[in-house]
Amino acid sequence: MNFDHSEKVQSLMQKLSHFMDTEIYPREDEYHSLVMNNTNKWQTPALMNELKAKAKEQGLWNLFLPKEYLPYGAGLNNLEYAPLCEIMGRVLWSSEVFNCSAPDTGNMEVIAKYGSDEHKKTYLEPLLNGEIRSAFAMTEPEVASSDATNIATKIEDKGDHYLINGRKWYTSGAMNENCQILIVMGKTDVKAPRHQQQSQILVPLSTSGVTVVRPMSAMGYLDEPIGHAEVLFENVKVPKANLILGEGRGFEIAQGRLGPGRIHHCMRLIGCAQRALDLTCERVEQRIAFGQPLSKQQSVRESIAQMYCKIEQARLLTLKAADNMDKYGNKVAKNIIAAIKIVAPKMACEVIDEAIQIHGAAGTSQDTVLSATLAYARTIRLADGPDQVHMMQLGKNLVVNKQ
Amino acid sequence: MNFDHSEKVQSLMQKLSHFMDTEIYPREDEYHSLVMNNTNKWQTPALMNELKAKAKEQGLWNLFLPKEYLPYGAGLNNLEYAPLCEIMGRVLWSSEVFNCSAPDTGNMEVIAKYGSDEHKKTYLEPLLNGEIRSAFAMTEPEVASSDATNIATKIEDKGDHYLINGRKWYTSGAMNENCQILIVMGKTDVKAPRHQQQSQILVPLSTSGVTVVRPMSAMGYLDEPIGHAEVLFENVKVPKANLILGEGRGFEIAQGRLGPGRIHHCMRLIGCAQRALDLTCERVEQRIAFGQPLSKQQSVRESIAQMYCKIEQARLLTLKAADNMDKYGNKVAKNIIAAIKIVAPKMACEVIDEAIQIHGAAGTSQDTVLSATLAYARTIRLADGPDQVHMMQLGKNLVVNKQ
Amino acid sequence: MNFDHSEKVQSLMQKLSHFMDTEIYPREDEYHSLVMNNTNKWQTPALMNELKAKAKEQGLWNLFLPKEYLPYGAGLNNLEYAPLCEIMGRVLWSSEVFNCSAPDTGNMEVIAKYGSDEHKKTYLEPLLNGEIRSAFAMTEPEVASSDATNIATKIEDKGDHYLINGRKWYTSGAMNENCQILIVMGKTDVKAPRHQQQSQILVPLSTSGVTVVRPMSAMGYLDEPIGHAEVLFENVKVPKANLILGEGRGFEIAQGRLGPGRIHHCMRLIGCAQRALDLTCERVEQRIAFGQPLSKQQSVRESIAQMYCKIEQARLLTLKAADNMDKYGNKVAKNIIAAIKIVAPKMACEVIDEAIQIHGAAGTSQDTVLSATLAYARTIRLADGPDQVHMMQLGKNLVVNKQ
Amino acid sequence: MNFDHSEKVQSLMQKLSHFMDTEIYPREDEYHSLVMNNTNKWQTPALMNELKAKAKEQGLWNLFLPKEYLPYGAGLNNLEYAPLCEIMGRVLWSSEVFNCSAPDTGNMEVIAKYGSDEHKKTYLEPLLNGEIRSAFAMTEPEVASSDATNIATKIEDKGDHYLINGRKWYTSGAMNENCQILIVMGKTDVKAPRHQQQSQILVPLSTSGVTVVRPMSAMGYLDEPIGHAEVLFENVKVPKANLILGEGRGFEIAQGRLGPGRIHHCMRLIGCAQRALDLTCERVEQRIAFGQPLSKQQSVRESIAQMYCKIEQARLLTLKAADNMDKYGNKVAKNIIAAIKIVAPKMACEVIDEAIQIHGAAGTSQDTVLSATLAYARTIRLADGPDQVHMMQLGKNLVVNKQ
Repeated sequence: MNFDHSEKVQSLMQKLSHFMDTEIYPREDEYHSLVMNNTNKWQTPALMNELKAKAKEQGLWNLFLPKEYLPYGAGLNNLEYAPLCEIMGRVLWSSEVFNCSAPDTGNMEVIAKYGSDEHKKTYLEPLLNGEIRSAFAMTEPEVASSDATNIATKIEDKGDHYLINGRKWYTSGAMNENCQILIVMGKTDVKAPRHQQQSQILVPLSTSGVTVVRPMSAMGYLDEPIGHAEVLFENVKVPKANLILGEGRGFEIAQGRLGPGRIHHCMRLIGCAQRALDLTCERVEQRIAFGQPLSKQQSVRESIAQMYCKIEQARLLTLKAADNMDKYGNKVAKNIIAAIKIVAPKMACEVIDEAIQIHGAAGTSQDTVLSATLAYARTIRLADGPDQVHMMQLGKNLVVNKQ
Repeated sequence: MNFDHSEKVQSLMQKLSHFMDTEIYPREDEYHSLVMNNTNKWQTPALMNELKAKAKEQGLWNLFLPKEYLPYGAGLNNLEYAPLCEIMGRVLWSSEVFNCSAPDTGNMEVIAKYGSDEHKKTYLEPLLNGEIRSAFAMTEPEVASSDATNIATKIEDKGDHYLINGRKWYTSGAMNENCQILIVMGKTDVKAPRHQQQSQILVPLSTSGVTVVRPMSAMGYLDEPIGHAEVLFENVKVPKANLILGEGRGFEIAQGRLGPGRIHHCMRLIGCAQRALDLTCERVEQRIAFGQPLSKQQSVRESIAQMYCKIEQARLLTLKAADNMDKYGNKVAKNIIAAIKIVAPKMACEVIDEAIQIHGAAGTSQDTVLSATLAYARTIRLADGPDQVHMMQLGKNLVVNKQ
Repeated sequence: MNFDHSEKVQSLMQKLSHFMDTEIYPREDEYHSLVMNNTNKWQTPALMNELKAKAKEQGLWNLFLPKEYLPYGAGLNNLEYAPLCEIMGRVLWSSEVFNCSAPDTGNMEVIAKYGSDEHKKTYLEPLLNGEIRSAFAMTEPEVASSDATNIATKIEDKGDHYLINGRKWYTSGAMNENCQILIVMGKTDVKAPRHQQQSQILVPLSTSGVTVVRPMSAMGYLDEPIGHAEVLFENVKVPKANLILGEGRGFEIAQGRLGPGRIHHCMRLIGCAQRALDLTCERVEQRIAFGQPLSKQQSVRESIAQMYCKIEQARLLTLKAADNMDKYGNKVAKNIIAAIKIVAPKMACEVIDEAIQIHGAAGTSQDTVLSATLAYARTIRLADGPDQVHMMQLGKNLVVNKQ
Repeated sequence: MNFDHSEKVQSLMQKLSHFMDTEIYPREDEYHSLVMNNTNKWQTPALMNELKAKAKEQGLWNLFLPKEYLPYGAGLNNLEYAPLCEIMGRVLWSSEVFNCSAPDTGNMEVIAKYGSDEHKKTYLEPLLNGEIRSAFAMTEPEVASSDATNIATKIEDKGDHYLINGRKWYTSGAMNENCQILIVMGKTDVKAPRHQQQSQILVPLSTSGVTVVRPMSAMGYLDEPIGHAEVLFENVKVPKANLILGEGRGFEIAQGRLGPGRIHHCMRLIGCAQRALDLTCERVEQRIAFGQPLSKQQSVRESIAQMYCKIEQARLLTLKAADNMDKYGNKVAKNIIAAIKIVAPKMACEVIDEAIQIHGAAGTSQDTVLSATLAYARTIRLADGPDQVHMMQLGKNLVVNKQ
């Protein structure tokens, strides 16, 4: 459990922070304005491509991909990636600049790990190059999808192809006009044992029968230009070669992606919360109420102290989880992965909500990042399983293993 | 402290609930769809006018206005209005149907109480008839407006007129195309004693020099078609007769409107929270996870029990506040008014947030009212003074008076 | 739901408050000192009997007993008794002065309601006169007693007598040297339907085979001179006439006592919390830290405001529960009874804990009532069923009835 | 920030755990029984001396003393001591077995660091040998002692001696019959700058004029045989050589002791909380309610998961604080020391309180360690400064330094 950063990581942190300072923060307003005023709100602004080119040039690219996938990626392990992911988390849209944004990261890992050579050539390479985007179609409106055995989408073997029918929503990324490929979770065999019924399959978004029904709102935000789609699959025919890993292995693939997926969200959320605290520390010196700056109010000091304590604890817990994943694998580390998924989103919600309260009306407005960031943090309390499912698993494991 | 409803109120409750059941709930989706698809999102859909006509016809009109303003209004006191206001609170946009929506209610009370005959004829009558809408321009972006002595907008006496300069935001209602009149809070004399510097003045929105700069977002929602505007006042000339009550009496007017304004928000929020609980009670029987309906999970039962306890307590506290206001006046009742303003918005935030968690992804979506309702509740923790200002006052008073 | 106090109740409140001011508060230190320095710490100090005589003389006696038991008691309903019970709650030991202390109140109600003439003559009369004390032996160390079907004590029919075997603990009152009679809950028929297995029986403490094993500590307090006993029953023979109501009706009797028992605890706890707030309001004006009285710290004001809001809400909820019990009976009122049992003890814990924090070291000491009062409040979160059992019931009922 | 344990520390952890398993846990009941039944409750039972001898023999002795004081102590730094201190924290009285108990540890550090050779010979050596005990007389009943400038005890220079007058309380350790020496904080010069008024002086408990007035209760516990004394100083004459470090340096000494003092409490509290969780994990498998073990209830699983998350986060934060103290000194590490003092006691209170709730009546009794442990945790939220003072400092520093 050595959390000191190697020289390599320190150098990347420095470069990344410098990039944030010079390229990202100064352009936050511009980016928002471009997205909001775009005639097609699902089109990524040209500014993004410009920034991506710069980031790639500086080697700030695909930082998330661990060394088993070299030459793809930067070869960092989770512990090394954590501080970088936190820094990117300070601006919601900046992960994409470094080709480190969900759900592409998870999809790239899945294809890199389980995909065929054909899958890699067709989808992984353009994804790694940041040329296309992808989505993961898992959650369904009709069932409690946190219990994966509920998934109702059917993937039927029709001899020479699979036939897919079902309805998904909150398929993040599928609204974006660069999105070309979906990984779809569905059932190939409803009679198999509980965790061998599911499969995952690659479905090009342009396939006949795939309809992007509408953008879903997430706590009031459509998250343009990425978006969260409702997607309908009606008699969608897909070649058999598109199946990933094999029939009945969808649950196994899902498990594999969840470890990194969860921890990346947690790292980003720590960045979100830290930024909320930083903004608050600035704000309270500037605003005067009842004869003194807010910073002199004891209750404001207590709030700030609590924010710091919460962030720092969640950060350390996330680092420990990252370290355990690196050392012992995601399976052995499952308790602490559950723990960060329980802790970090709730922490971020609390910290950002408090920052909003201290900011007053400005905190609720489009003039600060706070309310959009709170919406993100709030949805992560549900994404990849609600807090309750993780507490169920963690509580159960602790009782059995007596820690 | 008799909270039993009179026959008159019971009958109104029944009529109102019937109206909600037959006219409002069935048209929630339609209303949202009309607003969202309107080419001018600040235009009130025709459906609203249709519903207003029906409500007026049934005597469900101006229910908020107490009997001192008869023949205007229904002559109900706060305690009588409370259950009606709660019922309307179940659907965010329904208060307008009954001409009971903020900020018009507060503005009507102010003009009815302090306005000249001219003010009443020109503005109060069309407001009471639901023909125009109004806004209250109080909060300013540049200062901590919860401390009213910070207000920086200038209202200068120029002999035959006043000259207004300043910038306001979160001027709720001013985006709507029916909005014709603003009540503006500003300073007529910066050298007067602290609470005699402010004045309130009527400013037609069409006056030269008044610019609606942009709609402000409130936790991700623009709240179309009503909206919250940023409004710029540049050398705005207004006749001297537009001043309400007299120079230096703006703080006094503000105090007068705050009692009812606050309690109406609290009543509505109780309706919001109750509806969130009702939706949750339905949802948990329908969703199956891990082999049983959510309703059988002990943790879900605990959540539902807690929601009920919080709502019921806040409701009773609000009724007591209403009763005290009726019996002793807003000034004597100030502690309990502070108490409900501290309690109800936070309670609603907690209850609705828990409802969202139990609803899963649907709770964050546009398919339930939950996330928009949470945004409303969250902003009320700041509107009319942040929780902290009310706690400051209440805590101070309790120490001095030893209750 | 009329919470205004009748003249009769107002007069009793005034008399009771006067008694507290003149007889109780001035003697708190003396009483504690007498108990602590008594050679037999389970002996009630003579001061108590002196005070009881005075209270009886003033008609402040058996105030808890409702009018169906007249001429016994004061004939007050729950709503009328509530403010009186709250006032007594301000001093933990003062309820006994007015013969209104648990568990005697519950035991008296049970005997008055279900007892035979013989039971009434032998036990109810001396209890109503305050001559003896009693205890209720329900909870068992070996099983989760919140699920009454777990109760393991056996009451066997041996033809001409019952034979009792079992172990009870937290039999409150059984340590006191005036305690003469126990009501024991046990099983007469383990094969009967779940809620007809239990019976309740009167067991004189002096019966052969009854052993008071030891005093149980409750959060560090032995609660002398009343105490909570562990009691062992080994082949205890009791006449058949001692059975209350009939075999298999123990659960029914338990349900009957729980309504009033629970609400009395809640009323007392509101008194406890209110006193903690009152003490805090005094304290914060006297203590100076960092250059000003604590009362000027914004965080202290926020704490005090929160305490007030919590107390007032719990008080109103308790009044509503009392009113519903009076009007509709304990069965119909079961949801709101559950609600106050969930709310009031937790509220009292939070309020008193905050009072301790503001009092500093003194708050943890024997020099204020705070820490002993917190211990009482904390144990009530478990007594008569832990919070979780009440939330289970309430949550379940709400889902089924949709409120 | 390398939290991996060195081999040396791992070996000490193993030895210590083995000692706990074989010598401490099996004798917890015996120790409590000896203390409770002792005719002199302030006499340490012979069992303690027996255990101390064994611990010393095994080199488990004075583990707290860092290497600058070698040959005294084990030469461990804070990070190395942390896991050992946590293990000892699992049993409240066990720290003494290893001569690692407060306030002796702090007193030994003070004398080792600032004492004269004479002080060391007379007091430090017997303390390090575990032959005598000591106390630190800081807190005063009359003033808010968290603001050290309030301290009112006078230490007057009378030429050839100092004359001490004042009243202290919560002088932990001073009740114990082995206690021989007090370190007293008082003012030598009330006109000096704020932080140079105080001095610290060694006062043998047997000095004429020193009266141990009474034992103070801490949340219902007297904490025999150590105890917390109220101590009166009336014209106490002490040789001038007893002054530590020099006049006006009392605040400086106090600051020096607070870093380690605080972190030791936090480490112990993590042990307390971890044990509460361990006990809970065992309990929930054994207790059956409503047809299944508590461990299968979703709400119980959620509680256990939350306990784990809280403990693990506080542990990591404490390790980081220890590491920063070791690397940068207590002054630079002041923010994170404040953070753990804010976090760990509150965390322990919450975790243990939840454990009590799950344990039911047993949790409130003397049959588990839970309620005594909660009392300890609760008092630490006040000892060495209430949470609020640490939040004040931390909040202030964060705003200024923007961290």
